[in-house]
Amino acid sequence: MRAAGLGGAAAFAPPRTTEADAAGAPRPRVPDDPTKVLGAPPSELGQRSPFEQPQRRVNRRLPSGESETPLQDLRGIITPSDLHFERHHAGVPAIDPERYRLLVHGMVAHPTVFTLGDLERFPSRSQICFLECSGNGGPGYREIKKESTPQQVDGLTSTSNWTGVPLSILFREVGVEPGARWFLAEGQDAAVMARSIPVAKAWEDAMVAYAQNGEPLRPEQGYPARLLLPGWEGNTQVKWLRRIEVADQPFMTREETSKYTDPLADCTARMFSFEMDAKSIITFPAYPLVLPQKGWWEISGLAWSGRGRIAAVDVSTDGGRRWARADLDDPVLPKCHTRFRFLWNWKGGEAVLMSRATDETGYVQPTLEQLVAARGAGTNYHLNNIRSWKVRPDGRVLFGLASS
Amino acid sequence: MRAAGLGGAAAFAPPRTTEADAAGAPRPRVPDDPTKVLGAPPSELGQRSPFEQPQRRVNRRLPSGESETPLQDLRGIITPSDLHFERHHAGVPAIDPERYRLLVHGMVAHPTVFTLGDLERFPSRSQICFLECSGNGGPGYREIKKESTPQQVDGLTSTSNWTGVPLSILFREVGVEPGARWFLAEGQDAAVMARSIPVAKAWEDAMVAYAQNGEPLRPEQGYPARLLLPGWEGNTQVKWLRRIEVADQPFMTREETSKYTDPLADCTARMFSFEMDAKSIITFPAYPLVLPQKGWWEISGLAWSGRGRIAAVDVSTDGGRRWARADLDDPVLPKCHTRFRFLWNWKGGEAVLMSRATDETGYVQPTLEQLVAARGAGTNYHLNNIRSWKVRPDGRVLFGLASS
Repeated sequence: MRAAGLGGAAAFAPPRTTEADAAGAPRPRVPDDPTKVLGAPPSELGQRSPFEQPQRRVNRRLPSGESETPLQDLRGIITPSDLHFERHHAGVPAIDPERYRLLVHGMVAHPTVFTLGDLERFPSRSQICFLECSGNGGPGYREIKKESTPQQVDGLTSTSNWTGVPLSILFREVGVEPGARWFLAEGQDAAVMARSIPVAKAWEDAMVAYAQNGEPLRPEQGYPARLLLPGWEGNTQVKWLRRIEVADQPFMTREETSKYTDPLADCTARMFSFEMDAKSIITFPAYPLVLPQKGWWEISGLAWSGRGRIAAVDVSTDGGRRWARADLDDPVLPKCHTRFRFLWNWKGGEAVLMSRATDETGYVQPTLEQLVAARGAGTNYHLNNIRSWKVRPDGRVLFGLASS
Repeated sequence: MRAAGLGGAAAFAPPRTTEADAAGAPRPRVPDDPTKVLGAPPSELGQRSPFEQPQRRVNRRLPSGESETPLQDLRGIITPSDLHFERHHAGVPAIDPERYRLLVHGMVAHPTVFTLGDLERFPSRSQICFLECSGNGGPGYREIKKESTPQQVDGLTSTSNWTGVPLSILFREVGVEPGARWFLAEGQDAAVMARSIPVAKAWEDAMVAYAQNGEPLRPEQGYPARLLLPGWEGNTQVKWLRRIEVADQPFMTREETSKYTDPLADCTARMFSFEMDAKSIITFPAYPLVLPQKGWWEISGLAWSGRGRIAAVDVSTDGGRRWARADLDDPVLPKCHTRFRFLWNWKGGEAVLMSRATDETGYVQPTLEQLVAARGAGTNYHLNNIRSWKVRPDGRVLFGLASS
């Protein structure tokens, strides 16, 4: 009898990030033979196995707050709600749902205050889509550190099944005036986050979301209600939404002038860059993994586009000289994380792994050189250049450029 | 300015099931104005709002263990992993993933023991699909109690994004012999749960799953690995999978002879009824809800079929005399919960709400009378008859038959 799997490989388990590991805690003890011991009774709320404790990574360099999704630990496309990335500018506010109110006013026939119950009573809509911070990927654009995990490079993106009321329904209810072109979305956090959004997005697919992966929104995702703008940069999808003001021009708020605008090399600025461009990242193999042996491995990762469905993902194992088409897992949904897979026979030498996404509009994920040429080195947002992982002959996997 | 939503309705919030409510605990206190207080910092793991504590319902009548998903509290189609229903016959075993082994033997060329690392190294596949206990829906078939929630009636079904290795890949690896027709799947729990499965299901879409909604399986879902048979009764999808034995005939285990077989009125039995038939249930409005006023309400619920996609859901508000087509939320996936919605103008009188699912094979969810005629009153499994909710003039919603 064989004691082995693919190609006769010895036991291999991808490393898991656990709190116990980090703290040097002892390994949980379990019965030698579980069939000889009555197991745990059913419970009102499930708990993770003590052997599995995935965590967000809190980025302490930012005073105001962010935590990153552990992309390297996840499979499929759904992000568990307690691992969804968070980004906020003045902490997570605590809001009583019974006292929640949303004011919609400005260029409307009937200024209206909605309670949460009002929002929940309207016709609803659900969508599985990604959310990405527009600053996601900074560690892949500047000051590239080889010891970077997928979580550190691109952990500010997550996917959920969102439910809410289409904003178009609320806009019809209040009677948005014909000349209206923009609306202000304002949050009830201590930063009073505010952004200007074209009214056209409301007619397309914007919603006021109150549920995430089946349950009410998590506090750090905007409980009890947030703006959801599928495919657009996270910052525009104002959380803890308390006010929408309809107008005929943008409001030029702090968060869309001094921040969340892309300065260009010619001293102009790229403003209102709402859509998140097509992007992909290999999440396996990736730092801190050490491949234990040569042979067949499945390269796996995520691809997504703010403009629609992913049409194709190409993978290179030689630093971009040759590319081959990866397989995409069903379902491939618009404006949603898509899981790609590519079987690779590692010969044991140095290899540079790259992935390149193409979306259904024909947009192709650019190289770093192409992106720097278009935007300059000074931008902080929309950093979707091709990522690469170097596999060394000793199996160590390091983040970085093909040329480094 | 108006202080109201749809049709000028006063504030309305659907009731939430919270531990605090049940215990009569005081309402959580929050700042009067969240914009004047720095919020909570980012965290490694998110927590639910203290105002929202959905729970499974532990059914204490069963000695061996089950808990039900709170369908009436959920939106969209994904079930949070800690609210996924559980059913086990001897408790939840605790298993160390490093000591986990899966033996595949019998009519195979190369009997093999796989570690968890071996399984994770093979090519993977993800699928969003429902899982349903074949005994789900008993409270809708016999001894119907009006004071039943969707959770009590049909809470033994949930939907997750599952990831694992296709069983076809493992079967090719071990070299399943041409004459093989069935395999035994055996669990490592104290019940040593075992079922016989046709080999054909392995070639179609069976997988050995090790991840659920992105993260490793939850303990009560079979950690570290389980059989996943999309669309088939939950009991066959053996958890804590430790052994697969390939053979040319079924094994006639305890769990497919004395249990999980449908006795018929003519004293024969319906055996190996693997596929879960098309089914639906309205989750809003439903007991214990009291509709506060007449007017427009969105009827919402879930439909699913073990045979493929839901093709249509029809809704009746008059006890089945007239039916109208409901809207289906995207995505409509095969063998997966599908969310349906239907706008209803409640005139304030008595109404009987029903939903009827049709799947892509043309199968139509039967009435109770049709199901009893086909199976007799003595069966405990595959109880997918049409459910109904009576809305009384005072707004109370009760579970039960149209004729009761």
